[in-house]
Amino acid sequence: MDPRFITYLEKTLKEVSIDCVIFGFHEGELKVLLLKWKGTEWWSLPGGRIYLEESADDAVVRILQERTGLKEIFLQQFYTFGGNDRYKNTPSQGLREKLEQLFGDDFYDEKYMKRNVSMGYMALADFEQAVTTPDWYTDECKWWEISAIPELLFDHNEMIERALKALRRQLSYQPIGYNLLPEKFTMPELQRLYETILGKQLDRRNFQKLMLSYDILEKLPEKRTGGAFKSPFLYRFDKEKYDKAMQDEILFSV
Amino acid sequence: MDPRFITYLEKTLKEVSIDCVIFGFHEGELKVLLLKWKGTEWWSLPGGRIYLEESADDAVVRILQERTGLKEIFLQQFYTFGGNDRYKNTPSQGLREKLEQLFGDDFYDEKYMKRNVSMGYMALADFEQAVTTPDWYTDECKWWEISAIPELLFDHNEMIERALKALRRQLSYQPIGYNLLPEKFTMPELQRLYETILGKQLDRRNFQKLMLSYDILEKLPEKRTGGAFKSPFLYRFDKEKYDKAMQDEILFSV
Repeated sequence: MDPRFITYLEKTLKEVSIDCVIFGFHEGELKVLLLKWKGTEWWSLPGGRIYLEESADDAVVRILQERTGLKEIFLQQFYTFGGNDRYKNTPSQGLREKLEQLFGDDFYDEKYMKRNVSMGYMALADFEQAVTTPDWYTDECKWWEISAIPELLFDHNEMIERALKALRRQLSYQPIGYNLLPEKFTMPELQRLYETILGKQLDRRNFQKLMLSYDILEKLPEKRTGGAFKSPFLYRFDKEKYDKAMQDEILFSV
Repeated sequence: MDPRFITYLEKTLKEVSIDCVIFGFHEGELKVLLLKWKGTEWWSLPGGRIYLEESADDAVVRILQERTGLKEIFLQQFYTFGGNDRYKNTPSQGLREKLEQLFGDDFYDEKYMKRNVSMGYMALADFEQAVTTPDWYTDECKWWEISAIPELLFDHNEMIERALKALRRQLSYQPIGYNLLPEKFTMPELQRLYETILGKQLDRRNFQKLMLSYDILEKLPEKRTGGAFKSPFLYRFDKEKYDKAMQDEILFSV
């Protein structure tokens, strides 16, 4: 190979890993799955690397299955993080020493930090079905409420911000909720999901009218019973129409 | 370093490059800038690699400036291509031989092909201002109409499809046009831009009503003269309001 080209490759080698923002919805709260690094109090998003024979999409399916036990999961790329200071929030003590102890002195060398680019994927997981398992670096998994997320390692707080933004955008052209709600749900539960994602209160009547206009909901003959108030109707998504709306995207409505 | 970790790194090393879908708008047509590879009839998107000291965003600004001469350009990531068969559309003859001749036998070895992940950026360029320049691999630059794009190298046709889809989505939450239209334009010119991106005709009255409702346009006292028909009014974007709409995003409108 042309030596000029080898030099060029060496000067430009950046390598890729994956980080996952796994959202779950439970008791009216949007949550994110975080991992605690071995022997520290530092939390991060779950992630991993891509095997040579895998595509990035294969790798993320594998990583999610390893962390949550779930196979059928809504997944999409939301942003790739290619900054040069992604590791600035690496604690100089504690975690770093712990990692060096576990993996060797040059585990966190500066070159690695400058070379790593991370593909951010977001996943919508069925909270009730997920069985969480920590990875090689970590010894605890926990669902954190969006509003209570601590300071995370690396650029992982920014990752969650970006994933939330992507989720909000998605509401403007695709339906949401199939993977986040139980099979049968009430209109107030669906509204609560939208409100949690958007971070604001919505008008009850307008919300119901808009949702029904999308023609993706099936109203069930049953009602939710047991509450103190008037029993609300139950709905479920018409999967065929829902999938079609996902495909078609609700675009610029001139 | 723990030898298990070194083995893991070797098995999972994927590296990153950048490809750019540069859109321009000229004479009522949306166009994309393509490059022809030296001594071949094969076309591809412009792209490049990221220097160690650069962020991905720095690199794409540099690449775009090298290819178009433009500094102020609308730029955003739209998708990162992490497939395992991205290079299947590499011609076994012609280009490959040419590349091996230029760069050596192992330039296109299978390992490289399986290791490369590409960050896709789209750019909206001012067609009139761009001065295009080919790169190391190529000897011709040309703007191609979207509808006439030939079969491209690698997965570059898919990249253009994805970029167009991202551009269409963007219309549902952000204004568009500032970087694609001349400073002053008529409502039919703006409509033509939207129609070209969406790939469908829009109703003239509804379009005008919607556009004015966004409150980002400034109606000028001048008219476009010289045409055969009634002279249309000229508009320009109110940059402050336009930037605010870009920031705020026009979301889920309950």
